[in-house]
Amino acid sequence: MTTANTAIVIHAARDLRLEDRPIEAPGPGQVAIAMEAGGICGSDLHYYQHGGIGTAIRVKEPMVLGHEVSGRITALGEGVTGLSEGQLVAVSPSRPCGACKFCLAGQPNHCLNMRFYGSAMPFPHIQGAFRQHLVAEASQCADATGLTPGEAAMGEPLAVCLHAMRQAGDLVGKSVLVTGCGPIGTLSILAARRAGADLVVATDLSDFTLGLAKTVGADEVINMTQENLDAYTADKGAFDVLFECSGAAPALAAAIPAMKPCGKIVQLGLGGDMTLPTQAMTAKELSHIGSFRFHPEFHTGVSLMQKGLIDVKPLITQTYPLAEALTAFEVAGDRSRAMKAQIDFTA
Amino acid sequence: MTTANTAIVIHAARDLRLEDRPIEAPGPGQVAIAMEAGGICGSDLHYYQHGGIGTAIRVKEPMVLGHEVSGRITALGEGVTGLSEGQLVAVSPSRPCGACKFCLAGQPNHCLNMRFYGSAMPFPHIQGAFRQHLVAEASQCADATGLTPGEAAMGEPLAVCLHAMRQAGDLVGKSVLVTGCGPIGTLSILAARRAGADLVVATDLSDFTLGLAKTVGADEVINMTQENLDAYTADKGAFDVLFECSGAAPALAAAIPAMKPCGKIVQLGLGGDMTLPTQAMTAKELSHIGSFRFHPEFHTGVSLMQKGLIDVKPLITQTYPLAEALTAFEVAGDRSRAMKAQIDFTA
Amino acid sequence: MTTANTAIVIHAARDLRLEDRPIEAPGPGQVAIAMEAGGICGSDLHYYQHGGIGTAIRVKEPMVLGHEVSGRITALGEGVTGLSEGQLVAVSPSRPCGACKFCLAGQPNHCLNMRFYGSAMPFPHIQGAFRQHLVAEASQCADATGLTPGEAAMGEPLAVCLHAMRQAGDLVGKSVLVTGCGPIGTLSILAARRAGADLVVATDLSDFTLGLAKTVGADEVINMTQENLDAYTADKGAFDVLFECSGAAPALAAAIPAMKPCGKIVQLGLGGDMTLPTQAMTAKELSHIGSFRFHPEFHTGVSLMQKGLIDVKPLITQTYPLAEALTAFEVAGDRSRAMKAQIDFTA
Amino acid sequence: MTTANTAIVIHAARDLRLEDRPIEAPGPGQVAIAMEAGGICGSDLHYYQHGGIGTAIRVKEPMVLGHEVSGRITALGEGVTGLSEGQLVAVSPSRPCGACKFCLAGQPNHCLNMRFYGSAMPFPHIQGAFRQHLVAEASQCADATGLTPGEAAMGEPLAVCLHAMRQAGDLVGKSVLVTGCGPIGTLSILAARRAGADLVVATDLSDFTLGLAKTVGADEVINMTQENLDAYTADKGAFDVLFECSGAAPALAAAIPAMKPCGKIVQLGLGGDMTLPTQAMTAKELSHIGSFRFHPEFHTGVSLMQKGLIDVKPLITQTYPLAEALTAFEVAGDRSRAMKAQIDFTA
Repeated sequence: MTTANTAIVIHAARDLRLEDRPIEAPGPGQVAIAMEAGGICGSDLHYYQHGGIGTAIRVKEPMVLGHEVSGRITALGEGVTGLSEGQLVAVSPSRPCGACKFCLAGQPNHCLNMRFYGSAMPFPHIQGAFRQHLVAEASQCADATGLTPGEAAMGEPLAVCLHAMRQAGDLVGKSVLVTGCGPIGTLSILAARRAGADLVVATDLSDFTLGLAKTVGADEVINMTQENLDAYTADKGAFDVLFECSGAAPALAAAIPAMKPCGKIVQLGLGGDMTLPTQAMTAKELSHIGSFRFHPEFHTGVSLMQKGLIDVKPLITQTYPLAEALTAFEVAGDRSRAMKAQIDFTA
Repeated sequence: MTTANTAIVIHAARDLRLEDRPIEAPGPGQVAIAMEAGGICGSDLHYYQHGGIGTAIRVKEPMVLGHEVSGRITALGEGVTGLSEGQLVAVSPSRPCGACKFCLAGQPNHCLNMRFYGSAMPFPHIQGAFRQHLVAEASQCADATGLTPGEAAMGEPLAVCLHAMRQAGDLVGKSVLVTGCGPIGTLSILAARRAGADLVVATDLSDFTLGLAKTVGADEVINMTQENLDAYTADKGAFDVLFECSGAAPALAAAIPAMKPCGKIVQLGLGGDMTLPTQAMTAKELSHIGSFRFHPEFHTGVSLMQKGLIDVKPLITQTYPLAEALTAFEVAGDRSRAMKAQIDFTA
Repeated sequence: MTTANTAIVIHAARDLRLEDRPIEAPGPGQVAIAMEAGGICGSDLHYYQHGGIGTAIRVKEPMVLGHEVSGRITALGEGVTGLSEGQLVAVSPSRPCGACKFCLAGQPNHCLNMRFYGSAMPFPHIQGAFRQHLVAEASQCADATGLTPGEAAMGEPLAVCLHAMRQAGDLVGKSVLVTGCGPIGTLSILAARRAGADLVVATDLSDFTLGLAKTVGADEVINMTQENLDAYTADKGAFDVLFECSGAAPALAAAIPAMKPCGKIVQLGLGGDMTLPTQAMTAKELSHIGSFRFHPEFHTGVSLMQKGLIDVKPLITQTYPLAEALTAFEVAGDRSRAMKAQIDFTA
Repeated sequence: MTTANTAIVIHAARDLRLEDRPIEAPGPGQVAIAMEAGGICGSDLHYYQHGGIGTAIRVKEPMVLGHEVSGRITALGEGVTGLSEGQLVAVSPSRPCGACKFCLAGQPNHCLNMRFYGSAMPFPHIQGAFRQHLVAEASQCADATGLTPGEAAMGEPLAVCLHAMRQAGDLVGKSVLVTGCGPIGTLSILAARRAGADLVVATDLSDFTLGLAKTVGADEVINMTQENLDAYTADKGAFDVLFECSGAAPALAAAIPAMKPCGKIVQLGLGGDMTLPTQAMTAKELSHIGSFRFHPEFHTGVSLMQKGLIDVKPLITQTYPLAEALTAFEVAGDRSRAMKAQIDFTA
């Protein structure tokens, strides 16, 4: 256990620095954690590459990045039960207030006062979890015993996808299309499979990501630069559910003729405004349903991984020591070879 | 009862003619009907004004228009029970095949072989019901005893709106926004009220239609040329459900900040492609749900009108004799004075 | 405004007393209320007639009864906004903690620490609201301007029924059966009508209550001592939804053949164990769904009454001054002449 | 391929005979099948042991038993596509009419004219599929290539359980209790696991069946003769969903305190009337939902087995040649050593 607390801090586009931060002590109900693994997410990449996400969310002060993390507990605050020192835990970045009207409506992901790690949406920004030492609420921690730190750090994007499954409703025996096979798309394939989908087809523009889509369980993969979905459009379409993970309007539009009437499109990809074939979607009575973040699904995902019911390991394509964080960020953006790049905070 | 069978026939844009058609006899399970009232729908107007709907649906042969109709039974085919001569009936234009996979899935409005009156979507076109004499299946007929012929002819657009209520799910106590106050919007206000909505707010660009929206039960109406929805955007929004009846992307986009997280947008308006704030809709986890036609809701709507539970009479703003059909079509398109213009086939 | 605070206190079966209680001052976020009307509920009657409900819930210390109440605000505690002195309010007896896991799941009616007025379930008992002066949280108060105090006091049982509607899901155009036409049954008829039901049939053993069922909107009423539901059993049954308000197994069992396959039975009546035709219910894939208390529906119900969308006045059959509370309790139990007996705390 | 067509015929309680039946030729849309495997179901056992099920369903004429079957196609009728001679198929016993109101409502399992194999419910009885040669509709056949005939014959009880999953809704991350670990209970464990359940606990009175419950994926098994569910009753209960597969009221009643408020109980077991703690179930707002037969789930189940996503092999505990059918029926009823006993029609 180091006595330093090196953190990965974004200052502006392309200005990523390793900086020391004070080590805190856990208060009541909290735990201190020596961080082990951190996965680089698309939003982390946006901050790094563009200094923000779109025009509305901009980095206005130095911000520690990162929200896909795991670590080992080093100290327990007063009153913490059910956790112990040395235990590997996945740490949820979802920190709703527990008191606003959305929290009381069972919709904590819409909390009016959400403090999600590594977000420049509010100001002051919410500092992230890419650091060697973190103090977190005990309730954020999911036991990850038996998993590798890297798997445990996949708990966050997996939770995003499990939440999306709930937006789609019961999937047993359903035919599922996934558009966009980055980490969210491939984890959606794993989640849809676990939720009982029968046919799972995935599309992307990259053979590398489609190869991993196949590895984790897609029945068929389609590279839309060379093929199309015509085989699925007879009799008004073949798919009950579409998980749209690309954020690209053409990907969604191309899928409409392949959707069954009354089908559901769960939108995970964020790509700004979209121009959509609304008239055709309306005539088919499709539902286009947003899915954003998660909350209880975090613990669910870690538990399903522990029981061997979901295996995310094939998706972790690179792991870099903390000192090489910059390289990790460069590689993470290369869709021809990186699915999920992670940082090892112990190395 | 006339011995002629004058029909309103569209030949091309602005080429609407009154033509005679043969009078048919009812076969087994059918009834002969002397038509009484017919309401002019937006799609009828599109055929009249533009010779089609968008680029895909074009009038390629003379087609009798009309699908919002009522009449009085003049003869019963073999085996028909439960109906009698002289009875006023509302006639449903929904004629699914009863044998395709969607009919067998309880989704007859998505029938692969639908024969909806007055539609140029298939070729040969499906001839419509603006005629003095019609033969229909007994199952298309809903008893309309006690209603005026004009009210009975409102059964069709009312069914469209009742179907939309089902897309929204339980509305009891919900806050509802309606964008676009033409016939579908105002009938949606009536339907939402009947379905138990608490707050009903309606927007449009016309004071005339907003006046009728108020008459039929909106708690508040907003003319978007002068006002906005800012009063409803605090704490992530106020509306549980939006019935989008304008088909205009700006109307929908303006409503997004006023929608509660996890709210539902039921799309009734058809306006081609739409450019939408998909990212904001996704982050709020809104559902954008198409609603198209109806089937069982036709009989429901007529029954609710018969019981006095829904009163559509204020929406019938003009009635013209058959001979003045052309005037009726001109006036029907004038949103400053026409809500629903109808034709009286007996006059 | 009196300076006394006379309360209706149960000591044991048949031992009901009028006793004085101290007048409290409102704390922050609270209001002081001079009570106007209080309706006698079935549970109040159980305490009075039997000293408890079943064997599990027994009166072990003197307890103020009552939870269907309205009053006029006399003073506002610190920080209260949106309410004013002199305003008539309906007061919700539902007081969940806002912090337990059920409150945070949007299920406040299952709060682990619920403090529902006039309940002997926990010990010490939760004192009730049949008193001349009450201090309540501002959030318990629904504006009742324009209603009579008696109508406002119907907000509570109406909320029970509106909650039951939600358990049934969308009711537009549905065929609904109500078994048991006491206050909950008749309010369920009103609520089902408001929620868009098409056919509403009600059964009971008393012509008096069935007469009121008809008055408030049932299409047909059936006295099961003389008639039966045979007219509704063809082709596996006619009803989509049953609101079971009798708590009597025979009432429910008699309805099973009249329920459509996949129909829903919402259980409101509480009558201990029931011996049910489970095999027949299973083969029909019926859902038997409990409905217990309410929370947000309280404000909904008062609002719907204020807008004239639900009219409960015909159900208030007796009103007694506080001094005659004992008479009120005697009459309230007589199903041949009392639907809802209320007490006037101002008289 | 034999030229005989030996069938297993029930004449009365304990009067089971092997008899020859004529071999039919397939008509248009039909296929001829040489049967391979047949599983003995609880209803087959009831006919054998008691000559009927309860008092209402009695064997009144000789009836071929059996509805869990697979075989190999020997001839194709006119117009059959997508199937070929020699292909192993699982044969669905579900034969709805495709024309009644329930078929048209997407509820074929409630068909008014259902012709389910081996049922004495209608008279004449519907003859079953325990025979060496069967002619079936092509649409009844699910490709079972890659499965053993025994696995294919598990398609029917698996479909029962997959249908039950749909009654429960989305199971991802849910805590599931299964009461009764016969074939339906253990297949429900497999199905719940495939549908994404997190915690799966099973109860029974037999260590033998509980052992198999564990084998197929239960996290914990509880023998209710020695243990109880007390560990799951804190804070109003731990289970979201209960699959009740015993048909025994005590099993269901014992589970109520362990159910979370608003939990769902899917009733699969058929055990006549049940005396249930309705008041407690109502106060918890539990839903008790019947599940009966299946239809599209048959093809789903066979497909999931083919993909290796559900493995039923551990549940097939005995296989007897046709000549030993009587022994098979005796053993099938012994819950200390038989889970699913099957008959090999080729031996």
